[in-house]
Amino acid sequence: MEFDTIAAISTAMGEGAIAIVRVSGDDAVAAVNKIYKGRKSLLEVESHTIHYGYIIEKNSEQVIDEVMVSVLKAPRTFTREDIVEINCHGGLVSVNRVLQQVLQSGVRLAEPGEFTKRAFLNGRIDLSQAEGVIDLIRAKTDKAMNVAIGQVEGRLSKKVQKLRQALLETVAHVEVNIDYPEYDAEEMTTNLLLEKAQYVKGEIEKILNTAQQGKILREGLSTVIIGRPNVGKSSLLNSLVHEAKAIVTDIPGTTRDVIEEYVNVRGVPLRLLDTAGIRETEDIVEKIGVERSRKVVKEAELVLLVLNYGEVLTKEDESLFEIIENMDAIIIVNKTDVAKKIDLEKVKVLAKGRPVVTTSLIEDEGIDELEDAISKLFFQGNIEGGDLTYVSNSRHIGLLHQALGTIDEAIMALHSAVPIDMVQIDITRTWELLGEINGDTVSESLIDQLFSQFCLGK
Amino acid sequence: MEFDTIAAISTAMGEGAIAIVRVSGDDAVAAVNKIYKGRKSLLEVESHTIHYGYIIEKNSEQVIDEVMVSVLKAPRTFTREDIVEINCHGGLVSVNRVLQQVLQSGVRLAEPGEFTKRAFLNGRIDLSQAEGVIDLIRAKTDKAMNVAIGQVEGRLSKKVQKLRQALLETVAHVEVNIDYPEYDAEEMTTNLLLEKAQYVKGEIEKILNTAQQGKILREGLSTVIIGRPNVGKSSLLNSLVHEAKAIVTDIPGTTRDVIEEYVNVRGVPLRLLDTAGIRETEDIVEKIGVERSRKVVKEAELVLLVLNYGEVLTKEDESLFEIIENMDAIIIVNKTDVAKKIDLEKVKVLAKGRPVVTTSLIEDEGIDELEDAISKLFFQGNIEGGDLTYVSNSRHIGLLHQALGTIDEAIMALHSAVPIDMVQIDITRTWELLGEINGDTVSESLIDQLFSQFCLGK
Repeated sequence: MEFDTIAAISTAMGEGAIAIVRVSGDDAVAAVNKIYKGRKSLLEVESHTIHYGYIIEKNSEQVIDEVMVSVLKAPRTFTREDIVEINCHGGLVSVNRVLQQVLQSGVRLAEPGEFTKRAFLNGRIDLSQAEGVIDLIRAKTDKAMNVAIGQVEGRLSKKVQKLRQALLETVAHVEVNIDYPEYDAEEMTTNLLLEKAQYVKGEIEKILNTAQQGKILREGLSTVIIGRPNVGKSSLLNSLVHEAKAIVTDIPGTTRDVIEEYVNVRGVPLRLLDTAGIRETEDIVEKIGVERSRKVVKEAELVLLVLNYGEVLTKEDESLFEIIENMDAIIIVNKTDVAKKIDLEKVKVLAKGRPVVTTSLIEDEGIDELEDAISKLFFQGNIEGGDLTYVSNSRHIGLLHQALGTIDEAIMALHSAVPIDMVQIDITRTWELLGEINGDTVSESLIDQLFSQFCLGK
Repeated sequence: MEFDTIAAISTAMGEGAIAIVRVSGDDAVAAVNKIYKGRKSLLEVESHTIHYGYIIEKNSEQVIDEVMVSVLKAPRTFTREDIVEINCHGGLVSVNRVLQQVLQSGVRLAEPGEFTKRAFLNGRIDLSQAEGVIDLIRAKTDKAMNVAIGQVEGRLSKKVQKLRQALLETVAHVEVNIDYPEYDAEEMTTNLLLEKAQYVKGEIEKILNTAQQGKILREGLSTVIIGRPNVGKSSLLNSLVHEAKAIVTDIPGTTRDVIEEYVNVRGVPLRLLDTAGIRETEDIVEKIGVERSRKVVKEAELVLLVLNYGEVLTKEDESLFEIIENMDAIIIVNKTDVAKKIDLEKVKVLAKGRPVVTTSLIEDEGIDELEDAISKLFFQGNIEGGDLTYVSNSRHIGLLHQALGTIDEAIMALHSAVPIDMVQIDITRTWELLGEINGDTVSESLIDQLFSQFCLGK
């Protein structure tokens, strides 16, 4: 494939010590060399070497910035094209000026995701690996990152490739039978097909078994906190956020804001909804009524319902239980620091088997139990090794479900003695659907759409 | 000097394609090698080369991230120590995890500015160059960046060094005369000293002449917009910010928020004060009374006073003129799109020679003239070449002023026939003060304080 040469700022925007302008394409070395002044011409240097020098304004030779330039020649690069990375000073003005100089030497500004797209189009990685790259960057917890790095390394790709290979062999077998009908008894073919189809079905089911967890790890579990006024919703929010921050801010300089909406509870990334609603009411009289609860609960996958240990259950509490009927929820009976008035037995009945945790958020008691409950509810202990999760991406999960459907149809057809060449259609379709996961059988417009979700410079 | 090995994230925080963990010190290569898995051991590679591989968790060998590792061996590095840079995926979790692994192999987290401090302490750059590095990162406009890069390149250092050399030779000359009084006539010495001292004085004055401009370029010119309700303060603010944004956002992905408070008017960075005050009132009834104006004007170096072209001057307008008596100001008579009622002659009288510009901000008219006026007011056309500005840093300016004082005292002493060895004290003091600029004669606590202003990872 032939592409023009592209460039973009590849580090996050903001004031940092270093920023990187990345250039990729046949013309990368020559273009940067025009605006580089160092001991050697970049045209003469070895691949995978680093060179100190200055980026200069081409005409005036005015110094723009002091830089380290990395030259990486194809094919051992991220895009499989020649890549030049300019490490310059990390101010907004400096990195933008360096980029402007690069763009003025005949290089085009890259679109979001275009570097990774080239890595895909040039065959270095497949589509699911490319999607793993976004997930890696956006990962909110260590576990989510483990799933993503597995995907980048090609764990899902290999699985899918193996299944496609099995299906391809089956199809080839059918073709042989169609072309040489005298060769084999039809029954033998049917049995063989059935065996292969059931193997593929079983494997797809195995992968999908971890999908729900994988998806939560990737996207976060949308969570709401509800409860009557003054039961301690703000305290709960603060406790959760505080714990998460304590982990994240081990390292000075880490941006806290990004984490605010996500809290990491034992590896479960909770995406907290309506936190503004709770904070808003923190200073004034706290109120989040039944109406508002009904609204916010709609989007949630997990509800944290807070009750007051020091008060009897009210009608309002009971309507909140009605709202969360059939939902995943944890009931938090807060304020054990005051005298007990609540009927815990009744709470347990209303909870209908869902966990009930007693806490005193003010005295920092019961948080561990709460976190245990959250963690148990969603991982049931089986994700600890991290080995089970191959799939986390909704697109992949959707395709796997479709593939499960078509392979099921093939199996049913085989059972009901449908002609083999009809079964072949279902098997081929399964093969195609799996191919969409790693991008072998995917349309150009889908590719464009997928990569446009990337950040600039990736 | 001997230092331990340090590490930090050197790119800005946020989601980006790439982030860098930088490690510096004798143990850098060995420490990173313990958690690196690639084709070769990093202990065997050449300096200034780049290596593809993975960062792994030391004990479990679990893959943490896919990385490119740069190995740069002393002394041709930023710190003059061995440096390893790990380019990893630019997510918050990924880069933090890579850093954690590095810190677990016996490397200490760097303090803000510690890399640059080492570059200084190891003699690669002097103090004014190191300070230029911060300015470069924080630069808000191209011109500010030009001043900073000049400082990083050592333009000020060389100037100062030359003056110190001249002073040192003078002192040596005096020493010779004191030791061998028979050698030279005292008068000859006095004349020679006077000549040298006047040369140094002249040079310091030349540098200081550009200081005010340099300081504005570096720190921005604090500017307020005042005026009666409904004269168009918000429109003016929006016009200025909009123009600035149009420039900055040529490049997609540039953060706009950072720019909000600074607008770049023909290279003059205006630091807009009280913009919140103006925006606050934009939607409700606009009001910024005389009282508030009096308050905000106090901190300003430039006032933009807005009047209404379609109304006669009021008492309030006149009190605003009183408030800005003796200040740098530009008078903007806005709303030329409505019928004229204002007495422009009277405005000119009140302006006392300060520029008066008529605009219709709604119809986008007069903005050019306004920008001209701002630019002229502060640069008087003499900064265009960019060659005149050597100094922008308040610390340097302060030291230069002090040095000017002591060299002046020396000159006066020489004129009034004070004994030569007394004059020598002033000359030596001047030499010392200049030495504080490039860090030759500076205390350790000052050094610590200066570098603590740096961002993390620099």
